[in-house]
This record gives sequence, structure tokens and C-alpha cells, in this order.
Amino acid sequence: MDLETPPSHRPRSRGGVAGLVRRSPARLAVLAFVAVIAVFAVLLSLPAATESGVRAPLADAVFTAVSAVCVTGLVVVDTARYWSDFGEAVIITGIWVGGFGVLVLASILGLLVSRRMGLQQRLLAQNETKALRLGEVGVLVRIVLVSSVAVQATLAAVLLPRFLVAGEGLGEALWHAVFYGISSFNNAGFVSHPGGLPRLGDGPVAGDWWLSLPIAVGVVVGSLGFPVLLVLRERWRSPRRWGLHTQMTVFGTLVLLVVGAVVIGGMEWTNDATFGALPWYDRVLAAGFASAMPRSGGFSTVDVSQMSTATWVVTDALMFVGGGSASTAGGIRVTTLAVLLLAVVAEARGNRDAEVFGRRVPQGSLRLAVAVGLVGTSTVLVGTVVMTAVTGDPLDVVLFEVVSAFATVGLSVGGTADLPEAGKWVLSALMVVGRTGTMTLAAALALRESSRMFRLPEERPIVG
Amino acid sequence: MDLETPPSHRPRSRGGVAGLVRRSPARLAVLAFVAVIAVFAVLLSLPAATESGVRAPLADAVFTAVSAVCVTGLVVVDTARYWSDFGEAVIITGIWVGGFGVLVLASILGLLVSRRMGLQQRLLAQNETKALRLGEVGVLVRIVLVSSVAVQATLAAVLLPRFLVAGEGLGEALWHAVFYGISSFNNAGFVSHPGGLPRLGDGPVAGDWWLSLPIAVGVVVGSLGFPVLLVLRERWRSPRRWGLHTQMTVFGTLVLLVVGAVVIGGMEWTNDATFGALPWYDRVLAAGFASAMPRSGGFSTVDVSQMSTATWVVTDALMFVGGGSASTAGGIRVTTLAVLLLAVVAEARGNRDAEVFGRRVPQGSLRLAVAVGLVGTSTVLVGTVVMTAVTGDPLDVVLFEVVSAFATVGLSVGGTADLPEAGKWVLSALMVVGRTGTMTLAAALALRESSRMFRLPEERPIVG
Ligand SMILES: [K+]
Ligand SMILES: [K+]
Repeated sequence: MDLETPPSHRPRSRGGVAGLVRRSPARLAVLAFVAVIAVFAVLLSLPAATESGVRAPLADAVFTAVSAVCVTGLVVVDTARYWSDFGEAVIITGIWVGGFGVLVLASILGLLVSRRMGLQQRLLAQNETKALRLGEVGVLVRIVLVSSVAVQATLAAVLLPRFLVAGEGLGEALWHAVFYGISSFNNAGFVSHPGGLPRLGDGPVAGDWWLSLPIAVGVVVGSLGFPVLLVLRERWRSPRRWGLHTQMTVFGTLVLLVVGAVVIGGMEWTNDATFGALPWYDRVLAAGFASAMPRSGGFSTVDVSQMSTATWVVTDALMFVGGGSASTAGGIRVTTLAVLLLAVVAEARGNRDAEVFGRRVPQGSLRLAVAVGLVGTSTVLVGTVVMTAVTGDPLDVVLFEVVSAFATVGLSVGGTADLPEAGKWVLSALMVVGRTGTMTLAAALALRESSRMFRLPEERPIVG
Repeated sequence: MDLETPPSHRPRSRGGVAGLVRRSPARLAVLAFVAVIAVFAVLLSLPAATESGVRAPLADAVFTAVSAVCVTGLVVVDTARYWSDFGEAVIITGIWVGGFGVLVLASILGLLVSRRMGLQQRLLAQNETKALRLGEVGVLVRIVLVSSVAVQATLAAVLLPRFLVAGEGLGEALWHAVFYGISSFNNAGFVSHPGGLPRLGDGPVAGDWWLSLPIAVGVVVGSLGFPVLLVLRERWRSPRRWGLHTQMTVFGTLVLLVVGAVVIGGMEWTNDATFGALPWYDRVLAAGFASAMPRSGGFSTVDVSQMSTATWVVTDALMFVGGGSASTAGGIRVTTLAVLLLAVVAEARGNRDAEVFGRRVPQGSLRLAVAVGLVGTSTVLVGTVVMTAVTGDPLDVVLFEVVSAFATVGLSVGGTADLPEAGKWVLSALMVVGRTGTMTLAAALALRESSRMFRLPEERPIVG
């Protein structure tokens, strides 16, 4: 991104990656993502990738590669049963690469945006070199790498004894621990046991605190996003010095977790097909787990298809919101919803500005939030209409799978397992759009500059 | 609304209607609406109101009164078969009073808002009396009355010969013509023939141009709203002089009509259970009719419950948007969606301002649109979760009826006819909220003034 000359005098270089980086870093991000997906789709198309040794159908290989690299977790085949050890290694590598790539891309885009934002003020001083230095990116990548590996290793270390206690051999236990460490922190939602999260003790999975609590914590921590994690690592004890973005993300996430747990818990409290038969403390755990997963981890300790339709709709809403910005989570993001809600609160109070935590949210953030929210809504709407027409499944099922794909959650009420081939392609496209769209849309818009030097006369339409 | 003294010096009168008018005209509008509904519910509770002479159950009487006064058109019993002539007269009177009341209230609120808007500029000059004069309201009411009666009479005059030709007696034909004239212009969607719009000729209703075209035109004209109709009456030949609100409403309505007709037509083109068996020109009519009704007329010439689920979802979206501001139509309104979309377009172009037709849309309109859109979305979400839990109906049916109630459309895919009593109460509440909420919310917010004399420091969260 060459920011040294004003846009009107910037030379128009058309060819090569350098030109693309300069002209449209967001588009480059999407292209890089698609290229990585293609590589993993080829690997999963090898006969060695399946348990049976028979080459996987193209639609299944592509769907699984997309789901892994986009850290979604929707599956058309059972991961542990269908894919060979090599195939599973490809999948967990895809998750790791996809998750790491998202974090790095988001951080670089964020850096560009913050520089551009700063630029507008600095242009008056005209004494800065604004080109993004390679060294800066290097430092960023190293921080992201070290921190995320540390968290994933910690999760694996906590989970390893759980699998050993349950009687798994050291190698197998280590494999599962590492798999769930990566899969949870990256909000991937893939499971390496056949049929889903395993029943390790005497009781049901939903009551297994040692297994589900680390996974839930990993998902929520991963969903906060790197800008937030870095701030929390430095000064988690002094929330006043967190800065607006971290405060909004942490507080918003907490509110969503509590509200989600209360509502889902209330609606499933007596549903014996999910967690209604458990002791009350295990029901609290299961409700909290079900409330954390739309953030967008996508693991499940109960049969989601047995939850009530009302719970599905609430989960749809939670999934649509998703996690924090610049994280491996999906959705329109916690801060996007927060900015929209704060604008409504401000309007109700008769204030011109959205305000929170003693800070004023810029008008530009509201316009960005409207754009992200509206594009997200339109994507889900079109996806739902198309998938309804393609699959003929009932609306509650289709909407759940579409939102789950868009927000890269990976929860499923059963619609994905029996998809017709056209449905697999549509859902793959939705996962890619959901993964790359929100993030790059916001960055691309924030990076634009107006070339308009005049403002049109104002006229007020009647709204509402 | 006393605007002569600045808010901080305004005396706080707490008692009486005068105080309420002064303090909160929007709240007064809601109270007036509820009072009118109560009167009509009492009338429909009389034994004389039913065909059988047996007092209607309270839930049915209230539901029907709400549906009539809110000009929704959802019914729990067949209007022509269940209610007596007296009952039907009560219903059409309720529609007329409700529709007229909405127009007058919206106009008064709009007058207050535009005065308040003007006030902010005029405060500097301090040479205006800003109290709303009674004479002004009188003129407004007379204009609304004369114009709406003229349109309704015209519609009745066009429809009368259709019923005569079909063999109805003069009295019956006149009754039906007046009923449909009022019901269509007020976007009420009630029908006075048993079982829905009647099959008058040899062919199906969907191919009856003489019947369905006037009704569709009445609905669309009624859905534009009075501010637009007055402008169009004066200078419909010169769109450049319409002003921004009229341009946005007319253009937005046209786009929604065409897009809706193309999409619905495309999806139902070969569906023999709806209009797939008709000649192509009748299919075009039926698709256009189905696209106009979510505006929010709510009549149907085909069995909506036989349409595909994908068509239902598209209809949901069209109903949610609804008609024009200050009209008898419901929904979040065409201009609300337009303002949101224009903000996205501006953001994509890197412009700070939403612009259209050579005018700049104020930032305040965007905040209002966000508020209306978000409150509407939340209402539908909560309504859907509650109705799903109460009725146990499938999501596609519940969502359709909830959006239809919220946007006062009255289209139904069958969920309303067999509602349990709790469902009738929830849907009644949704109709009242949808009818009074959007309109008064926008006015109440626009009427607020900030008492804040300082701005907090700005800080930008990461969005999306
Ligand atoms: K996921
Ligand atoms: K209606």
C-alpha cells in the first residue's frame, strides 16, 4: 500500500502482485484464500486421503477443504470415519493455515486501515513516510504466531490427561489433544473422534466438564480476536486502559454469552432429548457451552437437531453476530452489532453521537457497521432462498445451515449431511464469502478515500 | 406540542391529555390507537356481530378488531361467513377509521417533526411562533379526508360494474365495491366474499384483470403515503420537482415491484398449484399482483400456502420492507431501506455522505433508519421465537405470519386460521406494535433534542 502520494497522483500500475497489493489489498486477501483452498482441495482429492483409498468425489473434497481453511467445521462426511490419517492431517493443517492466515491478514489490513486513518490527520503535517515497512509486518506475524501456538499448546496440555484418563494410548491422546487445541482456538469446530465429541466417562458428553470447558474457553478466547488478546495480555487487570475496541468486544461477548446461556438454557431446560435429563449444574454447563459455540466454534455436546425450533432461531441470531473483529470467528462481529445498537441508544436519547465507555464512536464506524450488517443480511437472505430451492429442506433447517456456513460456525441440525451436490457447491461458496467477505469488505471500505471536493445540498426524507 | 420555550425552561405539566400532547405526541398516538381498538373489540363482542348470533370468543373479537383497525387483514375466522352484516359493517368501519387515523396521525407527527427540524435553524432568528396551530391541523385533516375518499370512491366505481356483470344484485355489488375500495386503498386486505377474492368469470381469480388490477393499483397508491400523493397530485409530470422523499418512495416502490414480480414470477412460473397453469399474460398479472401485495395490501389471487418456500422467504423480505412513510402500509418503509442502501453505496464509493437524485441524505436520517431497521428486526426475531414456542408450527409458516402481522400485510400461509388462543394474543400484540411502532418510533426519535453541550473524545473500534 503506497500511501506516500495522494490518490490522484498515484501511478496506476496494473500488473503483478505488487500492483494488486498497492491497488486492493482486500482483493489480494480473497485471492490468497482461494489459492490456499485449492491446494488443500487437491490434497484431499488424493486417494490416500480417504480411509477406503477411493478418491473422494470432487464436491466433497472441495467442501471439506473450504470448511477446514475457512475454519467452519460443517462436514458432508464424518471426519474420523471417512478420511485417512493423512486426510485428517491435511484437514488439521488446513485449519491451522486458514486460522493463522486470517489472523495475519486481518492484522495487516487493520494496520493499513489504522495507517490510512492516521494519514488523514497527518496529511496536514506532511512529514511522515507512510509506506508499510516489511519489518513491521514481520514483527506482527511473529507475535501472532507465538501467541496462537502458546494458547493452542496450553489447550492441548489441559486436554491430554483427559484422554489418557479415559484410556486412550499416549499417541492417540496426544493427537486428539493437539487436534482439539487447534480446532477450538481457531474456532474450527472439526472433531477427530468418530461421530462428534466423544463420551469419555460414564455420563453423557454434555456433563463432561474437563472436556467441554477447555474447548469452550478456547473457542471464546479465539473469538475475541488478536487486537483484543494483545491488549488483554498486557493489561488485563486495568479495563479502563483497554481502549474502546477491546472494551466493546469483551463486554459485548460477555453479554452475548450470558443472554444466550439464559435463553437457550430456559428453552431446553426440560428437553430430555438434549440436556433436560442432566443434574442442574450439568445443565448450566451444557447451556453455557451451547451459548459459546455460536461465537463461532461450532462444537456440540448435545444433538443440536433435537433442540427446539425456537432454540435454533436464537442460535441463528447468535451465529449471525459471531465473534470479535480480526479473529478466526465469523459473523458480522460483536463490535458491528454494538455500534448499531449504540447508534439506536444515542438516537433514543436524542444524542447526535453514539457513545460508550466515555468515548464517542465516529460516524464512519456507523456507516461501516450498516454496510457490514446489510451485506451480511443480504447474503443470508439470498443463500436461504437459493438453498431452499436447491434442497427442498424445511426453512428452519436451511436457515440454520446457511447462517452456520456464512458465519463459519459449523453447527448443523442435519441439513448438511445429506446435501445434494448443488447444495454442497452453494454452501461452499457461502463459507468462502462469509469468511473473506465481512473482513475484507470492512477493510476495503475503510481504505477508500473520497475524491469528492464538494457536498450536495441536504434534503431529509421521511424515515420509518 | 409547545415549542415556544426551549426544553429546559418548559413547565412540566404532568396531568391530562394536554400534558401528554405536549410531552409525548407519539405516546398519545399509541394510546389513541389502543382506545379505538377497544371500542371496535366491544362492538364485535356483541351477539349481533356474528352470523350465528352467538357471542364471539374474546380472543377472536379482539384479534379481528386489531386486524381491522391496524389495517392488517389477518383473520382467524372467514369474514363473510362468520360475521353478520352488522359485524362486517363494524369491520369495514374499523378499517376506515384505522386507516384514516394513521394518515392523520402520521401527517401531524410529520408536521411536528418538520417544525422541530425547522426550529433548530430558526432558533437563531428567534422570531417565530412555533406552536402548532389548530387551523393548520384542520386543513391537513380536510385534505386527507377529501383525497382519500376520492380515491376510494374511484376504486369502488371501477369495481362496481365488474360485480354487476358477474350477476350480483345492485345492493350486493355496491357493498362489495365499496368494501374493496376501502380495503384496498387502506391496504387492509379484508375481503367481503366468503373464502377470499371471488371467482367471478369462467377463469380463475388470478386471471381476472378487471378485479385484480384495480385492487393492486389501490394498494400501491395507498402504500405511497400522503406526503407523496399530495406532491404527485400537484406535479406528477415533473419528477425533478418532486423533492427527495417523493422521488425515493416512488422509485423505491417501482424497483421493489419489478424485482418482486420477476423473482416471484420466476419461482412460481411452472407451479400449477398457484398460477403455473395460466396463459403467460395472466401469469404476468398474477406475479405482479403477488409482488404488489406485500407492499402491504395482503390480498391474494392464488393460494399462498401452495407457493414454494423460497417464494415465501422472498415475500417475507418484501413484506418486512413494506410501503411508504406516513401511509396505511406497514413495514420498516421503503425510504428506510433506501437510506440504508444509499449509505452502503456511499461507503463503497468512499463518500462520506449518502447521496441520491442530486441531494445529500442527512446523517440523522441514517441513524433513524438504523433504529427503525434494528427495532423492526428485533421485533420480528422475538415474535418468531415466541410464536414458534407457542404454536409449534414450522418456522417457514411462523415467520410468514409474524412478518405479515408486524408489517400489517395480512397475507397468510395458513398458520393464522388454526392459532391456539395464546398465539392469537401474541399476533394481536405484534399487529399493534407493527402498526404504531415504526411510525411513532421514528417521530419520537426525530422529536428528541440533545441536551448535551459537549462531545466526548472520539475512538474508532474495528468493525466487521
Ligand atoms: K467454526
Ligand atoms: K394489510
